[in-house]
Amino acid sequence: MKNVVVVGGGTGTFVVLSALKEYPVKLTAIVSMTDDGGSTGILRDQYGVLPPGDVRRALVALSESSDTMRDLFNYRFDNGGLHGHSFGNLFLSALEKVTGSFDAALKEASLILKINGEVVPATLEDSRLWARLASGKIIKGETNIDIPKASDRGRIKEVWLEPEAQMNPRVKKVLHDADLVIVGPGDLYTSIVPNLLVRGMRQEMKKSKAKKVYVCNLMTKAGETDGFKAEDFMGEMEKYLGKGVLDYAIFNDKRPSPQIMRRYGREHAEFIAPPTNRSWHGVKYVLANLIDARSGEFVRHGSKKRLAKALTLLIK
Amino acid sequence: MKNVVVVGGGTGTFVVLSALKEYPVKLTAIVSMTDDGGSTGILRDQYGVLPPGDVRRALVALSESSDTMRDLFNYRFDNGGLHGHSFGNLFLSALEKVTGSFDAALKEASLILKINGEVVPATLEDSRLWARLASGKIIKGETNIDIPKASDRGRIKEVWLEPEAQMNPRVKKVLHDADLVIVGPGDLYTSIVPNLLVRGMRQEMKKSKAKKVYVCNLMTKAGETDGFKAEDFMGEMEKYLGKGVLDYAIFNDKRPSPQIMRRYGREHAEFIAPPTNRSWHGVKYVLANLIDARSGEFVRHGSKKRLAKALTLLIK
Repeated sequence: MKNVVVVGGGTGTFVVLSALKEYPVKLTAIVSMTDDGGSTGILRDQYGVLPPGDVRRALVALSESSDTMRDLFNYRFDNGGLHGHSFGNLFLSALEKVTGSFDAALKEASLILKINGEVVPATLEDSRLWARLASGKIIKGETNIDIPKASDRGRIKEVWLEPEAQMNPRVKKVLHDADLVIVGPGDLYTSIVPNLLVRGMRQEMKKSKAKKVYVCNLMTKAGETDGFKAEDFMGEMEKYLGKGVLDYAIFNDKRPSPQIMRRYGREHAEFIAPPTNRSWHGVKYVLANLIDARSGEFVRHGSKKRLAKALTLLIK
Repeated sequence: MKNVVVVGGGTGTFVVLSALKEYPVKLTAIVSMTDDGGSTGILRDQYGVLPPGDVRRALVALSESSDTMRDLFNYRFDNGGLHGHSFGNLFLSALEKVTGSFDAALKEASLILKINGEVVPATLEDSRLWARLASGKIIKGETNIDIPKASDRGRIKEVWLEPEAQMNPRVKKVLHDADLVIVGPGDLYTSIVPNLLVRGMRQEMKKSKAKKVYVCNLMTKAGETDGFKAEDFMGEMEKYLGKGVLDYAIFNDKRPSPQIMRRYGREHAEFIAPPTNRSWHGVKYVLANLIDARSGEFVRHGSKKRLAKALTLLIK
């Protein structure tokens, strides 16, 4: 069975994992550990735990447990003193307190959720994401970078971790054994790049003999990738991943329905036009229709299937 | 295998269940559902769930899961916004929200905790415990009855449920199939009697062909059973359980060590002297040394063993 590794965090990773679950591959998710907003941020601040949010989402994606257990892990208390807390986050944080380590908590949670595959935090060290804008302004914390106060704040020049974080030792083995490494889709600076910033990750990605593919988002994100073209995404991937690491990049080549475009428009997200050339600095482009025929939306059932097919074709 | 049913709630029930776990019997715990203090009280008030606390303790007692899982269920957040919440309570309450019923949540939790036996809430209806003192004063809520503001408030005249609560239908079957029903030990008015107040419980207890034994506490409890002698406990049991229902009553016949007596003294708890007669209204008395030889304490390892032995002898 082929080893497929998905690198990211957030909804994009959840979607890719869910899509690939139907295929006979061994799935591993490497997830970023810089979330510091919402329920996760409160738990980090009040209990000194590592951020559970992205790990939780990946666990639920790979869970073969009952719907009830999956619903439980995603359940959010919607009022009172527990307002906003996701139960799965509380679960991981309490387990971290009981076992004394995030890693041990993750192992126990993986058993309870009957994980088919493995979830590997990019790092097991406590670190925060920082960003410098083109204006020189510095922003601290993923949640402040992810949810910009002003959408016209200008381009992100650079992101880094503070303090520096060592790669989770488990990542080395996972990348060594991988047949295919999928980077993305997801928020570029707040879900994807934080993985690549972990000390040791670039080297291990380069050393890995796996085919490496970047899955580009369908739309830009306000405050993060405004005005980005396909080549801008490729440039940033090269910057943080290194030259000559990626083999492929997958782009969507179909516009969503006008209704969906209007909805995205309200969020100041723009459609990323499919690239017209066939490759970029040696990275082969793969174009695929990732729009669901029925709903005109991205990453619904039909499109998930096509994305999974395009990905698995790379290791056929 | 004999069916042994323990009726109660709180620490006493936890101890009896843990002690009997070593024996080849099928254990069922019927637990009271009137807790409204601490973490449980907050969850009831803010989320409209049924009280998880006593069910949680019984689940942990019967769990054959890893120590980690048992520790997790008993884990309490000790600061921040989750201060005082027991993780197991959050687990049961979130599951109740996700599944839509306390009963479904209990079933799921029983699987996860690998319960050997069964935990059966006395009722699945939302009800509170009320008390009338000898002075005529009325107290609302188990936590206000359990933790009296003044230890000299006088004797409890009567306790009742408001609104009335129907017995959990599952209790009927459990009592019908029982070989031995153990009532207590535990706080008389706030852990034991709330079970007996549930509508239908008295009748089913009477109808059950099981041998029924009351395990009396070792010490009185300030604000609840001050000045109680063995016969006072028996009188209250008869009042709430009905005449001719109990077959046996177990009493401790050994005084704790002077150090332990001093510690209890600080809590205004008094030693309950073993009865000098052999029975009371047809209920046979069983005397047993329930003091741990080494620590001089009640319900430690040595004494638990002797209690379990005395109990299982009744169904030999």
